Amino acid sequence: MICQYVSIKTIIPLSLSSQPLNSLKSDEAGPKQGPTFQDGQRRVDYVLTYHIQKPQSFRRKTSHFGDYRILRSLRRSLSMMRGRDTPPPKEDPEVAAHKHRLDYHEDDKRFRQTEFEDNLREMGLELEKDEGNKIPGIGFLKIHAPWNVLCREAEFMKLKMPTKKVCDVVERINLFIRKATAPLHPKVEPNRAQNVKHLSHPFSREKQHLLLGNGVYSAAYPLHDILYDEWASYSVFYKYQPIGLIRKYFGEKIGLYFAWLGVYTQMLIPAAIVGAIVFLYGCATVDNDIPSMEICDPRNNITMCPLCDRACSYWKLKTACGTARASHLFDNPATVFFSIFMALWAAMFMEHWKRRQMRLNYIWDLTGFEEEEVSLCPCFGTCLEKKVKLTCTDRAPAYMTGLFTMLIMVGVTFAVVFGVILYRISIKAALHMSSNPTARTNIRATVKGTAAVINLVIIIIMDEVYGALARWLTLLEVPKTDKSFEERLIIKTFVLKFANAFSPIVYLAFFRGRMVGRPGDYVYVIGSYRMEECAHAGCLMELCIQLCITMLGKQLIQNNLFEIGIPKIKKLIRRRKSDMDSQQQEDYNMTLQRHEKDHFLGPFVGLSPEYMEMIIQFGMVTLFVASFPLAPLFALLNNIIEIRLDAKKFVTEVRRPIAARAKDIGIWYNLLRGLSKVAVIVNAFVISFTSDFIPRLVYQYMYSPDGSMHGFVNHTLSYFNVSDFQPGTAPLQPMHLGYEVQICRYKDYRETPWSNTPYDLSKEFWAILACRLAFVVVFQNVVMLMSDFVDWLIPDIPKDISLQIHKEKILMVELFMKEEEGKKLLRDSHANQSPLQPRSRPASHTPSNC
Amino acid sequence: MICQYVSIKTIIPLSLSSQPLNSLKSDEAGPKQGPTFQDGQRRVDYVLTYHIQKPQSFRRKTSHFGDYRILRSLRRSLSMMRGRDTPPPKEDPEVAAHKHRLDYHEDDKRFRQTEFEDNLREMGLELEKDEGNKIPGIGFLKIHAPWNVLCREAEFMKLKMPTKKVCDVVERINLFIRKATAPLHPKVEPNRAQNVKHLSHPFSREKQHLLLGNGVYSAAYPLHDILYDEWASYSVFYKYQPIGLIRKYFGEKIGLYFAWLGVYTQMLIPAAIVGAIVFLYGCATVDNDIPSMEICDPRNNITMCPLCDRACSYWKLKTACGTARASHLFDNPATVFFSIFMALWAAMFMEHWKRRQMRLNYIWDLTGFEEEEVSLCPCFGTCLEKKVKLTCTDRAPAYMTGLFTMLIMVGVTFAVVFGVILYRISIKAALHMSSNPTARTNIRATVKGTAAVINLVIIIIMDEVYGALARWLTLLEVPKTDKSFEERLIIKTFVLKFANAFSPIVYLAFFRGRMVGRPGDYVYVIGSYRMEECAHAGCLMELCIQLCITMLGKQLIQNNLFEIGIPKIKKLIRRRKSDMDSQQQEDYNMTLQRHEKDHFLGPFVGLSPEYMEMIIQFGMVTLFVASFPLAPLFALLNNIIEIRLDAKKFVTEVRRPIAARAKDIGIWYNLLRGLSKVAVIVNAFVISFTSDFIPRLVYQYMYSPDGSMHGFVNHTLSYFNVSDFQPGTAPLQPMHLGYEVQICRYKDYRETPWSNTPYDLSKEFWAILACRLAFVVVFQNVVMLMSDFVDWLIPDIPKDISLQIHKEKILMVELFMKEEEGKKLLRDSHANQSPLQPRSRPASHTPSNC
Repeated sequence: MICQYVSIKTIIPLSLSSQPLNSLKSDEAGPKQGPTFQDGQRRVDYVLTYHIQKPQSFRRKTSHFGDYRILRSLRRSLSMMRGRDTPPPKEDPEVAAHKHRLDYHEDDKRFRQTEFEDNLREMGLELEKDEGNKIPGIGFLKIHAPWNVLCREAEFMKLKMPTKKVCDVVERINLFIRKATAPLHPKVEPNRAQNVKHLSHPFSREKQHLLLGNGVYSAAYPLHDILYDEWASYSVFYKYQPIGLIRKYFGEKIGLYFAWLGVYTQMLIPAAIVGAIVFLYGCATVDNDIPSMEICDPRNNITMCPLCDRACSYWKLKTACGTARASHLFDNPATVFFSIFMALWAAMFMEHWKRRQMRLNYIWDLTGFEEEEVSLCPCFGTCLEKKVKLTCTDRAPAYMTGLFTMLIMVGVTFAVVFGVILYRISIKAALHMSSNPTARTNIRATVKGTAAVINLVIIIIMDEVYGALARWLTLLEVPKTDKSFEERLIIKTFVLKFANAFSPIVYLAFFRGRMVGRPGDYVYVIGSYRMEECAHAGCLMELCIQLCITMLGKQLIQNNLFEIGIPKIKKLIRRRKSDMDSQQQEDYNMTLQRHEKDHFLGPFVGLSPEYMEMIIQFGMVTLFVASFPLAPLFALLNNIIEIRLDAKKFVTEVRRPIAARAKDIGIWYNLLRGLSKVAVIVNAFVISFTSDFIPRLVYQYMYSPDGSMHGFVNHTLSYFNVSDFQPGTAPLQPMHLGYEVQICRYKDYRETPWSNTPYDLSKEFWAILACRLAFVVVFQNVVMLMSDFVDWLIPDIPKDISLQIHKEKILMVELFMKEEEGKKLLRDSHANQSPLQPRSRPASHTPSNC
Repeated sequence: MICQYVSIKTIIPLSLSSQPLNSLKSDEAGPKQGPTFQDGQRRVDYVLTYHIQKPQSFRRKTSHFGDYRILRSLRRSLSMMRGRDTPPPKEDPEVAAHKHRLDYHEDDKRFRQTEFEDNLREMGLELEKDEGNKIPGIGFLKIHAPWNVLCREAEFMKLKMPTKKVCDVVERINLFIRKATAPLHPKVEPNRAQNVKHLSHPFSREKQHLLLGNGVYSAAYPLHDILYDEWASYSVFYKYQPIGLIRKYFGEKIGLYFAWLGVYTQMLIPAAIVGAIVFLYGCATVDNDIPSMEICDPRNNITMCPLCDRACSYWKLKTACGTARASHLFDNPATVFFSIFMALWAAMFMEHWKRRQMRLNYIWDLTGFEEEEVSLCPCFGTCLEKKVKLTCTDRAPAYMTGLFTMLIMVGVTFAVVFGVILYRISIKAALHMSSNPTARTNIRATVKGTAAVINLVIIIIMDEVYGALARWLTLLEVPKTDKSFEERLIIKTFVLKFANAFSPIVYLAFFRGRMVGRPGDYVYVIGSYRMEECAHAGCLMELCIQLCITMLGKQLIQNNLFEIGIPKIKKLIRRRKSDMDSQQQEDYNMTLQRHEKDHFLGPFVGLSPEYMEMIIQFGMVTLFVASFPLAPLFALLNNIIEIRLDAKKFVTEVRRPIAARAKDIGIWYNLLRGLSKVAVIVNAFVISFTSDFIPRLVYQYMYSPDGSMHGFVNHTLSYFNVSDFQPGTAPLQPMHLGYEVQICRYKDYRETPWSNTPYDLSKEFWAILACRLAFVVVFQNVVMLMSDFVDWLIPDIPKDISLQIHKEKILMVELFMKEEEGKKLLRDSHANQSPLQPRSRPASHTPSNC
């Protein structure tokens, strides 16, 4: 039925096939599927709806039974219409006063509608109107695209036309594997199509006389039920996705999204397993960890300096035992191995996806396809307004606005993070003032909890704000093409959302506890608040908790609330408007035709939100994996649900999206690549600066008297003479521990009070800093080299695909050679006749109607 | 004359042009240029030579007047022949004894020759033999490729066929620029062709009925004289190269090489200018440099520790004044700026080349071209031997051999470097033993000079050895295709030659002076030789001298001796063999035809040596640019000569190479990209570890009492108590300076003899090390980010080219639309007639002979 799917079983030498090829005129062939025009013959390919009473604006709408290949030019006209539609015509509050103007408006609209319809007819499309029989006030314009129009468009889009089957040699082992993994494959018929590939050639009517045959059948459409049962259901979460079907139903762009999501989820499996093992290793070795043993040792009698001015008193290091043991779970040598593993994993993932994309490009015959840039000219039918070419000076203000707004917004994000810090500091200070010890412990938990929740809520709210802001900024810039609009929007959204999601985490990983100062010389912010310190065993533990809350909370809330809840509510509201009870509603639904039912579904808003969510998750999984080895596991669990959730949404919740062709995932690939590059350096810094990995190594090999870790805790603590407290900062209750404290300890590498340069940074500090930086340099370069090696080792094009392409080329050459011989024979035979007579070569019987 | 260059002035609607298109049969059109067959009509496209007396082997030979597009299939047959030719048939020493066998051999050869010629004829080629009229013993087989064979091949190679001129709007400014730069452009007619672009479409005979017209002219061939006068001459060194002509004459592959060389040389101009400015800045500020002023200050009274055991004595720091001042020329803050500049320059160069390549691809109509892999099956005519498929196990030994040989050879390179070091150390020790002070100064210069020359000679000799070795190793691996063979060979050669050229430099930059130990605890190699130290102001100066010698020496010797000298000598020897005096020779030359003259030229050995030389130079320019800002200037001067030298060689010294198509410079691009990545980290290390940049900064901001550089020299020197010398290592003449020395100084950051931990690394050492490493991390990441930004900022496809491509697409669409309408009209008119009658549409008059 569709040009692209005309499949020819046998190639008959052209010199023999001289009968008229009427069979190709598929407009007249076979019974019709799906909704048709009144004549029951012509299929409805596309539906436009409009208000009959006040034909003030057109609403676009996609039929679920629309043709898979929506005409490009139709789409272009629609994007023109859309351009005209936004901003929507303002509601005039003084209707009566401007009656005349409104009439003019309506006339104008009606005129434009007529003009638009004429344009469609001129393009060769056939139209049928269906006005207000069921849904009052709404008219439907059904559009049918005849065969020859489809063919012309196919020509322009350089669709590929399959010509001959090339059967793979199905080896026995392959068969066995297929049988073994059979339960993993969705039960769909056209799965077979992925193994049998058609030899194809850029569609060209010029070439058609080569490609014509006598067997013609139209492609079967993927039925709604198959996708629903075998894809958009949680019960099939362990199965591969029917990507071929998804692509046929939703187009390549959405097909690629789900393929990408599938590859990502699949690749998360090994990462999740290794991450879990690393975590378990931490659990298993926690009892053998000498530093935490030393901290928890009851003989340990180290007196620590107070954690806040005046209100706090000295404390015993052994009270930090629990945190120290918990920290070991995430701060052990296996973490270093794991972050190297994850860097390579990211490189492998990118390569794996490139190959998968290449394979899909081949299977879907996209290899020769080039995306055409559709300009965003805000026109209607014919280009009424003149294209105003914007120069650099015209654009400068918009760019400047964009840049400054972005900077301000990133600043706002930081300010929010700082605000939460201040909240924590001030509440903590207030809490230490209180004299009630039970209130203290309760309030401490409350503060931590509320701070984390506030952070999360702010992130989620700002996420929505930033999304709207990015769209507004992009509109200001007036990008020239659809693609450029999308890319700019994505980049802006990405920067804002990324800063939003990661700034609290970055603060925890690299800044918290580093700008504290030292006893006797603390750093104060806004008057008299001391900056936050980390617990004894480093900030890694808190970073880990924050990551955990952000990942789980964000995913749960955004998935459940925003992706399921809100569309449901919207649908409900839309139904409620029509003022009918449920029984009535159901009866009413029964009478509706497909295109009328679809009217009640929400519109499709694009793939960007879905991708964005996944990219932020990818960032969480790769960027700070050194501090949270369970991240891939969390991501995996989320994605298994996410796939089916998205599938459900696409199949049942929104109007069927217009099928769009795409060769790759576009700018998302670049963002992923950028993230996996940044991940290397971020992980290097997390390992060397946030964790205690390097100080431990340095102690063991440079300072330890017996080469063991015994004495490490003592080594990390500097001495402070309490007489050096600044006036008014000494603890109010110096006898809190029951004895008078003269020397207290604090975590830093500084000179002793009795050295020549008391409290200066010590030689150990510089030695450890040098080692930390050396580790960063070595780690970054080694991992980058290994990633590049992986990149180079795995060819971008899978071997079987490149072989297949080569085979197809050879077949093509053979085909041409045969035709060449045929021509030669013909020429020779004609040479004997009169050469000036019009030749009756069958090859010239190019069927004029495609 | 050539299929590709048939240019049609006007497109006549096909429905109107019904006259027979004989004019396209260009075999019969126009007067012939160049050498022809005996009939004076058919052009000689290709020449094969063979021995008549003993037809034991075929020699291949390219005519200078050969057709630009040598048939692909012919070339394939030739590569088959070549495969059979190497190794050449062994000379049998016992000829008489094996007469019978020899006869068999000759018969076999003759049989194969006949078979091969038959195959050529079967392919449609026309042959003519020219046996021994002038050069005794040599027979020539002239080959002519008729028009229809060329067309068939063009079809397979998807050559593009120009169809219609699209004139650019030549703006006034452009015109002005063109006039202003006119002297820079070579005076060649077809230069115009670069401004006027033909609309083209993949060549296809199917499409030809669309593309036919009435005006036909054959392309003018670039005359030998034009290339010689306007390109291969030193007097035009300031002009652009006539790349279009070069490509027409030598093919795309060589055209791309010269285009690349041109872009590289052009890009070197700004780098050379900035480098020279940086050097001049060093010269200008040398008198204001406080550290060297302090060293040269006559009041400076610092006593330094002896530079060798026993023989050397204490010395005054002010004797190092000269070196310190010289070092400042290359070790100043401008160098840091320059290495950042060069990193960005490298990124810009890569981008610039990508754009240029894209532009050339567009102009040369290569956009749709895909390289086909030609397998290296060693066959002759028909594939006589069965293709043996090598499995991994078959290949493993070869790979292992390759890997181990490579490792051994890189080891050998390091051993050679170490040998030269030992040579220097031992001679220096011997020299210090001698009591004659004049001998000492003379010998010191001698040692440095000879060591540098030895290094250079070894590099040049090993270069040749490694070239041969890499070829042998690659042959062992039996690569499947031509391209894979070339790539493997290039990678191996690159690794070996690169290690060879850069190991002495890397040693100087990063190892010399670092494994010395300290007074009282020196590091000794091979018995009692102390490792080399650097001069006081760091090794940068020596690194600089080594780079200078390597660059100049290598370029001068390799260019002059190997590229000009040896080919000349070879030619001379070849002529000498023919036993004639010069007058006779000249007369004889006059009588020779072109294909006979070419017989005396050397064969073309490929572009790899040329590229390799340039890549090594690119490495010198980018990798160690921090230590030698004049490198780009040297490279620029060399390349200006190199271009014309290569041009001369290609035009006059070697047989005309077979024109090969190529879309890009292949693996060389990857190597360049790799080098420019490595350059960032190498420069970071050179700045932070080899130069004194970081210690100066640290001193100024952390230790200097007044924030100035005063006291820096003193700060870099540690104290040594002479009583701590190991027994037998103290100087023999302790009173050399005229007073008794108790404390001497040495360049290192170590504790004082009177501290608790004497001679341990001091806090300053660790602080400076941390700063050095921090600089590496920051520099690497900032420069990488900036490079990526440059990469992202500059689009890969020049804007005018992408616009042009878009325009062409639109024109193509218009063309198809017109034809569509024509067809429709025709169909409508035919519909009234009998549809089964053979249609007499003029469109079907596809001329059967192309």
